[in-house]
Amino acid sequence: MTELRHNLVTQDWVIIATERAKRPDQFSQKHPEKVAIPCYDPQCPFCPDNEDLTGPESFRLTNSEGWLVRAVPNKYPALQPVGDVTRQYNDIRRSMSGIGYHEVIIENRRHDLTTALLTVEEIANILRVYRLRYTQIKRDHRMQTIIIFKNHGAGAGTSLEHPHSQITATPIVPRQLRTRAQEAMRYYDDTGECVFCHTLKYELNSGERIVHETKHFVAFVPYAALSPFHTWIFPRRHVSSFEDISSEELKDLAIILKAVLSKLYYGLNNPDYNYMIRSIPTGENRTDYFHWYLAIIPRVTLAAGFELGSGMFINTSLPEESAEFLRSIDVPI
Amino acid sequence: MTELRHNLVTQDWVIIATERAKRPDQFSQKHPEKVAIPCYDPQCPFCPDNEDLTGPESFRLTNSEGWLVRAVPNKYPALQPVGDVTRQYNDIRRSMSGIGYHEVIIENRRHDLTTALLTVEEIANILRVYRLRYTQIKRDHRMQTIIIFKNHGAGAGTSLEHPHSQITATPIVPRQLRTRAQEAMRYYDDTGECVFCHTLKYELNSGERIVHETKHFVAFVPYAALSPFHTWIFPRRHVSSFEDISSEELKDLAIILKAVLSKLYYGLNNPDYNYMIRSIPTGENRTDYFHWYLAIIPRVTLAAGFELGSGMFINTSLPEESAEFLRSIDVPI
Repeated sequence: MTELRHNLVTQDWVIIATERAKRPDQFSQKHPEKVAIPCYDPQCPFCPDNEDLTGPESFRLTNSEGWLVRAVPNKYPALQPVGDVTRQYNDIRRSMSGIGYHEVIIENRRHDLTTALLTVEEIANILRVYRLRYTQIKRDHRMQTIIIFKNHGAGAGTSLEHPHSQITATPIVPRQLRTRAQEAMRYYDDTGECVFCHTLKYELNSGERIVHETKHFVAFVPYAALSPFHTWIFPRRHVSSFEDISSEELKDLAIILKAVLSKLYYGLNNPDYNYMIRSIPTGENRTDYFHWYLAIIPRVTLAAGFELGSGMFINTSLPEESAEFLRSIDVPI
Repeated sequence: MTELRHNLVTQDWVIIATERAKRPDQFSQKHPEKVAIPCYDPQCPFCPDNEDLTGPESFRLTNSEGWLVRAVPNKYPALQPVGDVTRQYNDIRRSMSGIGYHEVIIENRRHDLTTALLTVEEIANILRVYRLRYTQIKRDHRMQTIIIFKNHGAGAGTSLEHPHSQITATPIVPRQLRTRAQEAMRYYDDTGECVFCHTLKYELNSGERIVHETKHFVAFVPYAALSPFHTWIFPRRHVSSFEDISSEELKDLAIILKAVLSKLYYGLNNPDYNYMIRSIPTGENRTDYFHWYLAIIPRVTLAAGFELGSGMFINTSLPEESAEFLRSIDVPI
């Protein structure tokens, strides 16, 4: 029986269309034209020895043998950190100068590796650069929101093979984030509890949607998941901003991220996915109501006219089955 | 120079990333594996003589030679119109029974034709069935919102070649629609004007984003278009619900829909697209603040981690250039 489920955190209703549901393993991806990816590509602007093909680095993490992770400007930036934030309001034409940040994090020297295949320490290095750039960009008071995300695979919107992620900062608070923060605030005022903490407690108690647990993090499929294998990784500790992740937590996040992405990689044959870190607007810091988290959306289905026309999603899998399937995939950590 | 633009109707900010902009004709689609589509496919459940492969028709439009347009249940319905709308609220698990409608409109007997290639009268027949089913479904007081949409092409989420669209009805008002109606109400209370009427007046006066005009409708690229060639078709007459379209307007909508979809078909080599009709929740009827319209979103770019992580869009084209390009494509009507 089909049902509608409500997501207490996002306040969205999702249609769980079990009538058209597939078994979890039927979402396994086919890559018909797959050819082996070389570990080094002399044409790739992100490979070693091509460092001068990118714009000036904002940061590089190094060891004695050279760089490990680099932060560089996006070649075609959506936003650039130069100039004043100005608004022009002329009737319906309301615009702002496109001031912001749009950086690429080159995650590894190797051209052919994806997060699921990196070591925990290599992933921790990527996260260290996220945290560092987050902290640095936050000091720029023109910025109001920092969004860190990764597009893995063509179906998730990337054209470059070399493993990379992106950091953007906008001079506004996106409407979606503002609305969610307001809803979380309302929940807190109503109940005295963080809605994220409450959800986490419920999920741990129930267990049926849990994907993986580590000392500091819990990965689970939300009760009203938007799409098959949609997974949230929540820190157990109530923290509003990603910036405030401790070094111990950061290493632990690398462990759980590797675990979940490996479950997707081995369980669904390397599906395209996006992940994004959702953090509080930079103007706020330590609130009782907002809780940062990381969301992973495997791109195994496509948003179509219904989703575009309503803002609602139709999920053709049962969240409990998605979670059970991912739990069952044993992965090397 | 990149800029952020604000959409007065949706209240969303969009990044217009002209630094990475392509020329309009660079969005022209490649269909490498394209083979000629037969005008009849004996295996197709939507082709004539296979009528018993679909569920029981809710409506068929006929002439002396047989059916012209059919409305049938979706084979894998996301929602079904059987039973009571009940809610179960159990802590974070909030659900409703999946009561609703999910119908397919088989648009034409021909297997190979798409809207751009149909006659105006054939398109008007599709719209007549939309209006009729809208009116009929609206009488079911369990329903709160009716969404009519079309997915054209694999990139827009359809797997069936035979031209078809869909009608869904939900027992809730989707949050996105509720928010937009609230914003329109707020604008009306603030200014005494419908924000859609005001936008239309501004666009007609400016002219630079107009794509096509007919007696009763105007097609334009919104000032803060979400993506390249994103087009809105507004009725000139202030009407809140699609149901209240007059028969003369309906024929005129067929003309402008054919014109715009033909411009996409010939100008961009038959791109995948979604269109959807945005109408007021069914519980309301004739309001001063809400104005129904049709939105077309060609799927020439992909939403990626930034869009998923912020709810904002990056548009890699200039709306004025998209509009100018579409205006310039001469099409047979």
